Order: sequence, then C-alpha cells, then structure tokens
Amino acid sequence: MNTTLAELATLTGGTLENANPDLPISGAAAVTDATGDQVTFFGNARYLPALKQSKAAAAFVPLDFAEQIGPALIRVANPSLAFAQAVERFAPEAIVHAPGVHPTAVVGPDVTLGEGVSIQPYAVIERGAAIGAGSVIGAYVFIGQESKVGQQCHLHPHVTVRERTILGSRVIIHSGTVVGSDGFGYEFSEGRHVKIPQIGCVQIDDDVEIGANVTIDRARFGRTWIQEGTKIDNLVQIAHNVVVGKHSIIVSQAGISGSSKLGQYVTLAGQVGIVGHIEIGDRAIVGAQSGVSKNIPAGETWFGYPAGPIRETKERLAYIGRLEKLYARVRKLEQVLDAKGIS
Amino acid sequence: MNTTLAELATLTGGTLENANPDLPISGAAAVTDATGDQVTFFGNARYLPALKQSKAAAAFVPLDFAEQIGPALIRVANPSLAFAQAVERFAPEAIVHAPGVHPTAVVGPDVTLGEGVSIQPYAVIERGAAIGAGSVIGAYVFIGQESKVGQQCHLHPHVTVRERTILGSRVIIHSGTVVGSDGFGYEFSEGRHVKIPQIGCVQIDDDVEIGANVTIDRARFGRTWIQEGTKIDNLVQIAHNVVVGKHSIIVSQAGISGSSKLGQYVTLAGQVGIVGHIEIGDRAIVGAQSGVSKNIPAGETWFGYPAGPIRETKERLAYIGRLEKLYARVRKLEQVLDAKGIS
Amino acid sequence: MNTTLAELATLTGGTLENANPDLPISGAAAVTDATGDQVTFFGNARYLPALKQSKAAAAFVPLDFAEQIGPALIRVANPSLAFAQAVERFAPEAIVHAPGVHPTAVVGPDVTLGEGVSIQPYAVIERGAAIGAGSVIGAYVFIGQESKVGQQCHLHPHVTVRERTILGSRVIIHSGTVVGSDGFGYEFSEGRHVKIPQIGCVQIDDDVEIGANVTIDRARFGRTWIQEGTKIDNLVQIAHNVVVGKHSIIVSQAGISGSSKLGQYVTLAGQVGIVGHIEIGDRAIVGAQSGVSKNIPAGETWFGYPAGPIRETKERLAYIGRLEKLYARVRKLEQVLDAKGIS
Repeated sequence: MNTTLAELATLTGGTLENANPDLPISGAAAVTDATGDQVTFFGNARYLPALKQSKAAAAFVPLDFAEQIGPALIRVANPSLAFAQAVERFAPEAIVHAPGVHPTAVVGPDVTLGEGVSIQPYAVIERGAAIGAGSVIGAYVFIGQESKVGQQCHLHPHVTVRERTILGSRVIIHSGTVVGSDGFGYEFSEGRHVKIPQIGCVQIDDDVEIGANVTIDRARFGRTWIQEGTKIDNLVQIAHNVVVGKHSIIVSQAGISGSSKLGQYVTLAGQVGIVGHIEIGDRAIVGAQSGVSKNIPAGETWFGYPAGPIRETKERLAYIGRLEKLYARVRKLEQVLDAKGIS
Repeated sequence: MNTTLAELATLTGGTLENANPDLPISGAAAVTDATGDQVTFFGNARYLPALKQSKAAAAFVPLDFAEQIGPALIRVANPSLAFAQAVERFAPEAIVHAPGVHPTAVVGPDVTLGEGVSIQPYAVIERGAAIGAGSVIGAYVFIGQESKVGQQCHLHPHVTVRERTILGSRVIIHSGTVVGSDGFGYEFSEGRHVKIPQIGCVQIDDDVEIGANVTIDRARFGRTWIQEGTKIDNLVQIAHNVVVGKHSIIVSQAGISGSSKLGQYVTLAGQVGIVGHIEIGDRAIVGAQSGVSKNIPAGETWFGYPAGPIRETKERLAYIGRLEKLYARVRKLEQVLDAKGIS
Repeated sequence: MNTTLAELATLTGGTLENANPDLPISGAAAVTDATGDQVTFFGNARYLPALKQSKAAAAFVPLDFAEQIGPALIRVANPSLAFAQAVERFAPEAIVHAPGVHPTAVVGPDVTLGEGVSIQPYAVIERGAAIGAGSVIGAYVFIGQESKVGQQCHLHPHVTVRERTILGSRVIIHSGTVVGSDGFGYEFSEGRHVKIPQIGCVQIDDDVEIGANVTIDRARFGRTWIQEGTKIDNLVQIAHNVVVGKHSIIVSQAGISGSSKLGQYVTLAGQVGIVGHIEIGDRAIVGAQSGVSKNIPAGETWFGYPAGPIRETKERLAYIGRLEKLYARVRKLEQVLDAKGIS
C-alpha cells in the first residue's frame, strides 16, 4: 500500500515543492501524530504552530500558503479534500457485504427485494416491505410492515425502521437509530395523559445520512420529513411532524420539537434545542447549546440561551463581562456626590 | 375509508355550520397542508392566519369560536381531541401482532407467558421472567432474568429490559430503550474509580409510556421508580434511585441525576438537567434547557441556567436586555459631573 | 441471607456502638427508606436531618462522627464503601453467564474465542474478530470484522462494536451503545455535503466502563481513544478523533466534539458540551450544562454558558443578581442631579 510523494501529488492534482519525489510514504496522519513517512495537511489556522514542528514528510497546503514549515509542501486547491484522498489511498480494505439473504433473516410475505441486496444475519423484514437494489440491511435491522427502502442504502446493525416509513436512495443510517417511533402526544383528560394516536409516517429523502442512536418520530398525521442531502449526527432528536429542508446539518445531541420546520442549508450546532411550531429560515446557523423559541429569518446566525442574533448575544455577553467595572463606576459617582454633599 | 362532513360531526359530537353535510371527505391534515377534501382543526392561536387561508373543507373549532375563516366550521368542546378522532377514522389499518411465540424466540426455563401474548422474532426471555396476558414483545426485545412484564404491555423492537425489572400493565416502551442498566457509581480509591455494585432494580408502574433510546438505570439498592401514568419522551436519562411521581411529563433529552425525586404531575421540558439528590414538588414545571440545582416547591414554574422561579429569571433577562441603555445613562452621569467640574 | 449487626461490623472493619450486636439485620437501604431491621449510612450532609429520624437499626458513619442520631453507629473509615459492602452482602444471587457459545450465535470464519467466553443468544461475531478469555458477549451483541475484545470484558445485550475496534480487558459496555460508527465529516462541494471516509478506528483501554446508548465514533484516520480506567455515563457523545485521558469521568448526556483532547482525571458533569479541537487539562472539572469553547488549563474548575473559570462565572452571576439594585442606584443618581439642576 506504500506510495511516494510524487504519486500522492499526482493523485490529488497538487504540486510538490522542495522534496524528494521518490520518498516512500506509508500513511496519512494528523499534524501532531504524523511521522517521517506520513503526509499531513493544513486545515485549520489553530494548528499552524503544530504544523511548523510536524515531523510529517509533507503537508497538503492551500495554493497561496506562505508559511515556513517543517514538512515539504504539496500545494492543492482544497487541502482537506486532498488529505481525504490520501487517507483513502492508505485505507484498509473496505468492509464488503456480499449480496444475498442470510439464512437467519426473517423475511415476511409480500416483501420485495431488489437486485444485489445484502440482508445480514437476524434482519427482520416484515410483511409488504420493499428493499431497493444494492442496499445493505445490517444485522438485527428491523424493517416494519410496508416500509420502503430505496436503492444503495446502508442500514448498519441494530437500526429500527418502524412501519410505513419511506427511505430514498443512498440513505445511510448508523447503528441504534430508531425511525418511526410514536410522536410524543397526549391529551390531558380527567387527571391522566391520554395517548393521541400517531398514525403518520416518516419520509427520508435521497442522500440523507443519519448517525447512531438518533430518534426520528413518526408524524401524528401526515409525515415527519427529512429532505434530500441532509446530514444528522448522533443522538439527535427529531419530533413528530418536523420538516428538515435539503442539505442541512444537525450536529450531535440537538433536538427539534414537534412541527417545527427548518429550511435548506440550515446548520444546528451541537446540543441546540428548537421549540415546537417555529420556522428556521434557509441557511440559518444556530450556535452550540442555543435555545431557540422564535422564528429565525433566512441567512441569520443566532446564538445563546435564550437565542438571539449572534451580534446581539455577543454584545449582551460583553456588557455582562464589564459589569464589575460598571458597579465601580456607579460607586464612584455615589462617592463623588456624597463628598460634595449632593444627595 | 371516505366519509362526509355530517358523519364527522356525528363522530365527534360537533355541530356543522354553513356547509354541505354530504361533502365527501377523504382525510385529515394540518392547517397548512389540508386540501379541499380534508378536515383540519384550530388548536393554536399561532395558526389562525394560516387557518383563514386554509383550503380544508372544514375545521374543528371551539364552541365560542368567532373568527371568519375559509373552511366550514364544526364546533366541538375540544377541537384537538375531535381532530384526533377524525385522524383515527382515516387511519391506515392498525399493525396487528398475532398471538403466539415466534419459532426464533429464545424462551428460558421457568418463564411464564400469559394468555394471548405475542412474542416476535428473535425475542430473548431469560430464566424466571414473566409476561402478562395480551402483551406484545417485539423483535429483538431482551427480557432479563426474573423480570416481570404486566398485561397489555407493548415493547417495541430492540428494547432491553435487564434482570429483575418490574413493569406494570399497559406499559409502552419504544425501540432502543434500555431499562435496568447499571447506575453510574464509583468509589475513588488509590487513583482509580472502583465500581459500586448496582443491585437494586427498576419499577415502572401502570400506563407509563417511554420513548425511544431512553436510558433508565437500576438502583444502587432499592429501586428506580417511574410511577403510574407518567410519559417519557425520547433520549431521556433517568439515573439510579430516581423517583418520578404519577402522571408526570419528561420531554426529550432531559436528564435526572441520581436519587432526585419528582412529585406528581411534574413537567420537565426538553433538555432540562436536574442535579442529584433534590426534590421537585408536585405540579412543578421546568422550562426547556434549564439547569436545576435546588429543590423546586410544589406548583412553581422555574426556568433558566441556573434555574430559578420564572418571574425572577424573566426579570433578570429584562435587566440584561437593557444594559446598553444603562451603560449610556452612567456615561451621561459621568459626563455631566465632568462638565460641571464635579469629581 | 440475614446477618447481625456484629457480623456487619466485622465485614466492614467497623466498630459498633451502643447496640445489641446480635440484632438480626435483613437488608440495607437509604436513610429515608430503611426499616428497623436494615442498615443505612451517612454519606451526604444533606441527609443528616433525615438520618436523625431514620428508623434504620444502625448507620455506617465516619470515625469522627459526633451527631446524635436515631440508629446505632458503626464507625468506619469510609461509610459509603462500608455500605456498599453491606449492600453486596444482601444482594440477590448474581446473574451468571455460563461459558459456551449459544447455538444461535453467528460466528464468522477466523474468529478467535478465548477460554471460558460466554457468547449469548443471537450474538454476531464477524470474520477475523477475537474475544479474550472470560469475556461475556451478551444477546444481540454485534462484533464487526477484525475487532478485538480483551479478557474479562462484559458487553451487555444490544451493544454494537463496528469493525476494527480495539477493546482492552475488563471493559464493560452497557446496552444500546454503539462503538465505531462513522465520524460526522463532510466536504461541502457544489451545493452538497460529500461524505469524508472515516477509516480510522476506536481504541478503548483496560477497565473502561461505558453506559447505555452511548455513541463513540471511529476516527477519520488514526483513532478515537478512551484511555484506561475512564468511566462514561449513559447517552454521551464522543466524536471522531477525540482522546479521553485515563481515569476521567464523563457524566450523562455530555458531548465531546471532534479532535478534542481530555487529560487524565478530568470530570465533565452532565450535559456539558465541548467544542472541537480544544484541550481540557488534567484534573479539570467542568460544571453541568457548561458550553466549553476554549482550552481549560490543568486543575481548573470551569462552569457556565459560555464556560469560564468557576470563580469568574459565579462573580458574573452575582453581578447579574444585583442588577435590580444597580438600576435603582443609577435612577437615584439621576434624580439627585435632576433635583439639584445638574444636567
């Protein structure tokens, strides 16, 4: 699997500077971990000091990179992408799931299996479900009645897809995630919470990836809907009737309450909470741990608890940070007036 | 499955106004989604503008509703409940789990199965456990040694119930939830954390519903106890020896630390954190993302980080919101005194 | 299983005071729950009033305990530890997992099973994996290709260990936890998020315990690394390339973003969030729900949102708490000047 600096430059469309092109390279590693036979990359200004001292043989850097560093340079348009290509070059052999249905899988009546599907041990696919061509259904994956899985999907071990869920193509779902559990809805009546039937479904469009131990509840009626290309990190909560627009990013442990709607290209950072029945506009960004209880207009960046436009939140935090001095200034005013006998 | 406006009015005990009673209706949908052959409802003042423009054939509204809207009116005592009845009227056929033990289930010695239980594929029920009449044990559900499940319970696929757990009747547990994992307890000794045995149990009383991917730890000794009628949303953490009183509501991603006790009819909103060893009084309400480190008296509403009575927290936030002006006022006082030569 | 006060004193190396040594004792319970034939302990000053009124037969107390309480005293060096010993004395019979491979387990080619391993029903162990001597692999546990599990480990039902993961010895993992899911990494290109291959691994060292429904992502390259003796509570998120040093404590629902590094003996309280690419020094403590976006020096205690040194955060909260009075003081200054005609 070894290669050379020259080959890596060719692979990534980069230009090698000040280095022996035939130097053998055996791997790719982070700036602080890389050894003399590995390549690294410059992806974050925070790591520049570490890069200067890195023992890596070479580093992928931007075209206009002007710093003096230890490793040789491979100039590329996108160092992070180039590094990813190098990482893949050294990757261990990919895990392959051969097509076929494992004899322990329980496949119900009226199930449709597309060409080349791989159904792993102990998968359960209930009556009337359909799995598209080339999809991998991992060990212990549960596909409920009448659910549809598109083509080239990959459901990792221990995923639960409840009944009447619709997955598009190339959807990836990581282990432990539950799609289609009942929404959290009750009527309060005579001192008790009476369950409201949750008879809608969940629809997940093409090219969505969902992390591990995520929960996405089915709609009370209609659908909970994750649109094309959106990526959801681990342990995220998506409540009933939520809509997440295309190409959004929901970072770990964020939660979206019932019926809220996110636009396209929205970013929710980690541990953000969104209350129910609000709208987050296209390309809005919400900072980590923010608590959002109002609509966010398109394109705005919000932050804080309670969340507001980031400029306002930062000003507020700055005012708070100067309170010690403000108290001193007021005390001084009081003392001055007191000394002058003005009161 | 189609019906008419008149039939829906009869079904929900409502009064139809200004509409053709024989109009065919094919479904129920949200205000913004409903089409001309569907009904909707008025459940939240926020949606009044949308309701005015809704294309729905009719809307369930309160008895005293006085607005002019597009859809015809069906006046009812509880529009949300009436809508739920309509939704159920149009619901797809319910998923049925036929009684019987799937041949792949592993049922240990000395297990008691009540009449009409449904044991789904790959369930594992260990030695000495008991499942009450009419309960559904989903695919891959694990019931540990000597655990008891009451009557008419429904454990969805991939639930883990560890040993010596006690579930009442009509308990619903959604997929991925773990009941009875070890509490998080260590003694620090000679530079290492030494595990404290967690030998208590978890007791969950009648009519409790628990969402997906929840964790409820067993007690260090004695029991972790969820009392009758309480509803717990997805991804909630309940630590060892916690007691949650009857008919409480714990919203998604909230966490309750060890040995804290909640009263009856308590509401914890999403992402709330409760420290260990405190008490939350009956009917207390805690706002979203609050961090609670003190006892909350019965009936109070708390909010904030750190949490306090909501009136105090709101005042504090209002004072913070006016800081820019306060700085300006102090600056002006300083300038006035300076101009007058007072200093 | 009954015993006497004298036997409990001997068991715990304690000294019994003012009590009948032959009094029969049938159990151990919390201060507020203990009955007259049970022992309890003094572990938290908060419970002293309850201890004074406790009906327990005796209480484990520190050597220098000087309060008058209802129960008899058993003086010991560490009451909590002594109580744990008593609890274990009364514990129900431990759950035993007999060695052997259950006939329903699916064990791939080239798998190595150490002496005395217990492989429970429906475990799946893929090609090339290895399980060390004495380890228990619970029901439905998935061990991916080429993963290594050390000796005397216990993986509870429904754990997922993806390919090429390395677990040390005596590692405990609770149900629903996912180790080795893909890190959350994408390149944004032409309006879409393109998945970056996550081809590193997860390494978990000796004596680590991981709670239920935790997620630990595999590294983009290299490894995500949990070092010896660290304990992780339920529902915690550990992102790709994170390093958690030895003997750290990560409390429930905390999240650590990509590439951040924690030192030894670090404590993260519940629901803490750590941004990516920062360092938390040895023995640092982070208070509950804090949002940390900067490096924390060794030995410091931080708290707040945004988090800072706890002394600074507490001062800030105190200044905020006195704002009502500050507004009044400024108002008074304005009135005084106004009355004097100074403006």
